[in-house]
Amino acid sequence: MTAKTTKFVQGNEACVEGALYAGLDFFAGYPITPSTEIMELLARRLPANGGKFIQMEDEIASMCAVIGASLTGRKVLTATSGPGFSLKQEALGFAVMAEIPCVIVNVQRGGPSTGNPTHVAQGDVNQARWGTHGDHAIVALTASNHQDVFAMTVEAFNIAETYRTPVILLLDEVVGHMRERLTVPEAGAIPLVERLRTSVRKGVDYHPYLPRDDGRLPMSDFGGVHRYNVTGLFHDMWGFPSDNPGVVHGLIRHLMDKIENNAHRLAHYKTYHLQDAETVLISYGSAARSALHVTENLRARGERIGLMELQTLWPFPAEQVARECGHAKQVVVVEMNTGHMCQMVRAALGPPARVFLANRMDGVLITPTDIKAHLRLIAGRGV
Amino acid sequence: MTAKTTKFVQGNEACVEGALYAGLDFFAGYPITPSTEIMELLARRLPANGGKFIQMEDEIASMCAVIGASLTGRKVLTATSGPGFSLKQEALGFAVMAEIPCVIVNVQRGGPSTGNPTHVAQGDVNQARWGTHGDHAIVALTASNHQDVFAMTVEAFNIAETYRTPVILLLDEVVGHMRERLTVPEAGAIPLVERLRTSVRKGVDYHPYLPRDDGRLPMSDFGGVHRYNVTGLFHDMWGFPSDNPGVVHGLIRHLMDKIENNAHRLAHYKTYHLQDAETVLISYGSAARSALHVTENLRARGERIGLMELQTLWPFPAEQVARECGHAKQVVVVEMNTGHMCQMVRAALGPPARVFLANRMDGVLITPTDIKAHLRLIAGRGV
Amino acid sequence: MTAKTTKFVQGNEACVEGALYAGLDFFAGYPITPSTEIMELLARRLPANGGKFIQMEDEIASMCAVIGASLTGRKVLTATSGPGFSLKQEALGFAVMAEIPCVIVNVQRGGPSTGNPTHVAQGDVNQARWGTHGDHAIVALTASNHQDVFAMTVEAFNIAETYRTPVILLLDEVVGHMRERLTVPEAGAIPLVERLRTSVRKGVDYHPYLPRDDGRLPMSDFGGVHRYNVTGLFHDMWGFPSDNPGVVHGLIRHLMDKIENNAHRLAHYKTYHLQDAETVLISYGSAARSALHVTENLRARGERIGLMELQTLWPFPAEQVARECGHAKQVVVVEMNTGHMCQMVRAALGPPARVFLANRMDGVLITPTDIKAHLRLIAGRGV
Amino acid sequence: MTAKTTKFVQGNEACVEGALYAGLDFFAGYPITPSTEIMELLARRLPANGGKFIQMEDEIASMCAVIGASLTGRKVLTATSGPGFSLKQEALGFAVMAEIPCVIVNVQRGGPSTGNPTHVAQGDVNQARWGTHGDHAIVALTASNHQDVFAMTVEAFNIAETYRTPVILLLDEVVGHMRERLTVPEAGAIPLVERLRTSVRKGVDYHPYLPRDDGRLPMSDFGGVHRYNVTGLFHDMWGFPSDNPGVVHGLIRHLMDKIENNAHRLAHYKTYHLQDAETVLISYGSAARSALHVTENLRARGERIGLMELQTLWPFPAEQVARECGHAKQVVVVEMNTGHMCQMVRAALGPPARVFLANRMDGVLITPTDIKAHLRLIAGRGV
Repeated sequence: MTAKTTKFVQGNEACVEGALYAGLDFFAGYPITPSTEIMELLARRLPANGGKFIQMEDEIASMCAVIGASLTGRKVLTATSGPGFSLKQEALGFAVMAEIPCVIVNVQRGGPSTGNPTHVAQGDVNQARWGTHGDHAIVALTASNHQDVFAMTVEAFNIAETYRTPVILLLDEVVGHMRERLTVPEAGAIPLVERLRTSVRKGVDYHPYLPRDDGRLPMSDFGGVHRYNVTGLFHDMWGFPSDNPGVVHGLIRHLMDKIENNAHRLAHYKTYHLQDAETVLISYGSAARSALHVTENLRARGERIGLMELQTLWPFPAEQVARECGHAKQVVVVEMNTGHMCQMVRAALGPPARVFLANRMDGVLITPTDIKAHLRLIAGRGV
Repeated sequence: MTAKTTKFVQGNEACVEGALYAGLDFFAGYPITPSTEIMELLARRLPANGGKFIQMEDEIASMCAVIGASLTGRKVLTATSGPGFSLKQEALGFAVMAEIPCVIVNVQRGGPSTGNPTHVAQGDVNQARWGTHGDHAIVALTASNHQDVFAMTVEAFNIAETYRTPVILLLDEVVGHMRERLTVPEAGAIPLVERLRTSVRKGVDYHPYLPRDDGRLPMSDFGGVHRYNVTGLFHDMWGFPSDNPGVVHGLIRHLMDKIENNAHRLAHYKTYHLQDAETVLISYGSAARSALHVTENLRARGERIGLMELQTLWPFPAEQVARECGHAKQVVVVEMNTGHMCQMVRAALGPPARVFLANRMDGVLITPTDIKAHLRLIAGRGV
Repeated sequence: MTAKTTKFVQGNEACVEGALYAGLDFFAGYPITPSTEIMELLARRLPANGGKFIQMEDEIASMCAVIGASLTGRKVLTATSGPGFSLKQEALGFAVMAEIPCVIVNVQRGGPSTGNPTHVAQGDVNQARWGTHGDHAIVALTASNHQDVFAMTVEAFNIAETYRTPVILLLDEVVGHMRERLTVPEAGAIPLVERLRTSVRKGVDYHPYLPRDDGRLPMSDFGGVHRYNVTGLFHDMWGFPSDNPGVVHGLIRHLMDKIENNAHRLAHYKTYHLQDAETVLISYGSAARSALHVTENLRARGERIGLMELQTLWPFPAEQVARECGHAKQVVVVEMNTGHMCQMVRAALGPPARVFLANRMDGVLITPTDIKAHLRLIAGRGV
Repeated sequence: MTAKTTKFVQGNEACVEGALYAGLDFFAGYPITPSTEIMELLARRLPANGGKFIQMEDEIASMCAVIGASLTGRKVLTATSGPGFSLKQEALGFAVMAEIPCVIVNVQRGGPSTGNPTHVAQGDVNQARWGTHGDHAIVALTASNHQDVFAMTVEAFNIAETYRTPVILLLDEVVGHMRERLTVPEAGAIPLVERLRTSVRKGVDYHPYLPRDDGRLPMSDFGGVHRYNVTGLFHDMWGFPSDNPGVVHGLIRHLMDKIENNAHRLAHYKTYHLQDAETVLISYGSAARSALHVTENLRARGERIGLMELQTLWPFPAEQVARECGHAKQVVVVEMNTGHMCQMVRAALGPPARVFLANRMDGVLITPTDIKAHLRLIAGRGV
């Protein structure tokens, strides 16, 4: 897979291509629509590339399997949709606490519960942030087209390895199932972040939770030359449990800060016509396709409208949103939920910003026509 | 248990007393500290009162058991702490979707993951709101003292039955384990809401999801005279699955609106010295004990300080907060997390309100001294 | 028909009852849905009451017939829907110019053109104002329920006689076809304005267009004791044509001022909960039924919402709207068109008023749910 | 008629020249002053050019005839004045609904009703917008001199064909009857838009109301190779009637959007000395001749005054007005009616713009002296 190739694929396949490009070598999962194609494709592709594929007995086991495999030095992935994502929350919290690099794809469908299978939604955005118990930080990326699905999948692995963190790839059913062109770049075209392994030699004390000066925590393949403790409890630099308030507070801040203090590095987004935009749309995932269509369409008519397409949802790029939208007369967040990002945008912009939600949440992709109708309503002009 | 009695109990026992008073007749659970005493006490008390107690094989099974029992007409309870609460999220979403009355106690400890067992935290507040996938609404109550734990437990059952919804009782380790006096009122002193059963007779078509004029959905004990469908999928008034966009949107709005449109009815809180307060503390749970201490202490010194103690966390009582705090020069939210309620208060008050967070999250109860130090810092007077 | 009676009727029948109560004695029309029941009922009722009923060959002839009959001293009515209303515009302008008292009912259906027969719309509001050529003023009333249809029909006749003007009764399909209770008051309960006839005797010069001190123009039954000229041309006090600029300007101002200077007397509207309303809905016709439902519903939840229901559309009650809504944070005009009244409200309120349009125009009655969805969108909270 | 020629003509003749240049090949009409010369001239010129001329029995028949002829593939025109324009409103709505290209000239005289024949007025501006029932959009152009009458007539045909819409040419008696020089350009100097005919072949399903990607609807000459339905009812892409709410809303929005979304393309106007103007006059038609005179006159004196002459009245060029007049200290709308465009300008500019109306409506052309008197009054300097 070293030469640049162009394919006509589903978004789920673009995700698979990205994962393989990034060096994926272990996948565990349990099928659930609309993410199943990721699993199906990897069942064939991953072994053929020398990786390991395993279908587990359930969603929880899948999450636990990737955590274990990651600890042994593998780049790991699991894929699911909402119900499976809920089941994985407890183990996901373990990965946060034990700082295990892993990538979890949630191809969103309508919820709550079994919900609206194989119909699009973006209702798990806040769950990606708050689904597991206890204060923590998380990284969640998304994409609106297959080239970006590919790029964000590679980036998800890079971030997971850089920050020793689970990274959630929040796709949605439309992006997952839609087919469009994908160009897989030649090997090396996108830099890959490899596991930072400790330089501590065998027999020398290895501190799995002692950060280097740059904040990164070198790892040692579990089961390899070093013996060390890994726990979901608050722990010290050796990985041993501690309820010492200073240790507890230090670790919780470390878990938060390693993500939030790097929000500017993690903030991926695209802008369209923002320079003089009086109305700014903010959108992401498949909704951003419609938002982009509206933007180009109204621009052609001379309207001062622009689009900020978020690719990083968490940590929420508050500063970037404030910078890009500060001059807008109104900001309209286009998403397919009750306003998860809208709430964050509103908080980021503060007054006198006028922030509106243009949403749809009935399992149908929000269309340019929907967005235009919302814009009309917001402008006081009715449907 | 008809006469008024006074006891010296743990908060967990106050919760048990409240549940029994409310008419609990089924409990399923799996032990986890700091909630275990609820289970232990009910193992003895519930069968003695004619109810059923069952220890399940895990947290998920416990949640499923209470859902099933509720459908058959029982008032049901389960109790857990953070890790168990994460595991229950998927089934909790089913209860939301299928509109199953049930009460889930989460006696919070430090997280994420295994975290800081048997040390206090309030880090699961946002998870209570967003832990399960898909857009939905939820009710979450809390309390800072045993009399209120009792009252809020009764209220949790009343709300669950009134709105056919899971209700989360978000206690914390300090409240759960602390001992203080509890007066259990005589039977009848607190009105109880009983299951609204359908008046539709056997052999007549029963619509399990057809609301009455007042919005309530009469239930029929599952396994009884009516056969009907219950599903986690979006569904119509017969309970049969539907992906019709109108049905999906209608149900998601119903699930949201039945809670959020009744926010004023669900909003429980206490106020102390708010009438002329220039500084308003907002707090809840065990943190509110310290906040109340500070308030009374500084009032005695003539400072214009007041306290709004929240007992309903979700739906967030935005209007009530705005009304009670609108006149304050500054609002200080006292909680033991990264600012879950603080974010909501900030959004509710809007500018020019100055909203500060006075928090602690190292497993130690935030003290009056901590809060006073925060107040000095906020005032520019250093610690 | 002297005793008070209660009936269960369609809105079209309420209109008929009102017309008969007001003293209708001539009807000419051509059937068009959804107004046809007015004609059908009058075919039987009017002759039975001593009046004349005639079905004409078309809409234009019907308008001309009522104009002629009115000149002879009759209280006249015609009824139609949009396409017929368009056809009547030229003759309607004659009635404006020649100052002929008459009442024209337009039971609105969807337009333009043949449009959407027997489905509701409110798309003819601006046409009622501007449908005939040349500057002029007009009176247009509407109603949302059958008691008000009755009352506004009586008022239409009273206004027509008082001001010698056509009065348009702009009903809509839902109001016209819906059945609800109507109480017809006993004779005399509502004061009736009778034709002001000249006291000038036979043989004495009668000036048909010479106003009295109070601005009213006494009439003489055409074909009776006085001979005089009636024309659609600009004319002097004798009714003779004139292109003298002073006469032209004087007449155009007279035609405008007799209506617009009495806007406060002509302004009929109802208010609900406006005293402390932060959100004011403005609506009319069947849309106001939904708006009222929303108002009462949200009030019950504690929201500061109110409703101003317009019964007079033209002359637009700008001062009344400004007075009643001046304190509102936002005004939402609920109507089933592209915003005919919304535009007037916006102009009446001026900045910093925030005026929004909550509309629907697909032939389906705007529902409380629609309005609530609009309110959510306007508030930035999405659907 | 291929060489450039210069003539000394009435405005009505300039209109005829424009229509012939644009490729007119069918005219139907009924004579009414002050538009009659258009008909008289075409009775001779059109047959000589290979076109068809027909005098119909009345105004309604004329409008219907041009609609029918247009459907068979002809470029069509009718001409009238106010009373005839009122009579045509019903059929005009059919042309709007069925999307029939046609041009209707209204050479305005004083109204309402028979009004003030052969005296100037601009009182039909709002009727052009709202004269037919039901929500719709319309294009209305005007001109103040013969060269522009010619150009706007050609443009009217181009717009009618491009957007499949009736286009109203709102001239007035002064422009229609005044004589001045007209240069008819050589053939080809002004690009013409020809009927877009479908490329669908005989025997293949033709969808008369299915837009291409660019929004245009290819036509098939009625009576030719395709059979299809044309109706004034709301209809689907085959032209068959539908009361499906989605179809109704979709069509009404299509009818609105094809015009209003192209407002910037349709916006024709001229500017004079606007760059530093503190006082901006806005005018159109013959009134603009006086406004231009005042502008040049006061400029010569050093006053910072400018003129925006509107040629497109509907869709009202709100953005263009806002852009051109945004810097003005005061805007004075010069027109011969009660302020039809003034109301639109006021809405377009919003505060703190100070918008004044300088009008006259007695059948006499507003003069430079009239306008200057208005300007003094506005400045507080008396007449």
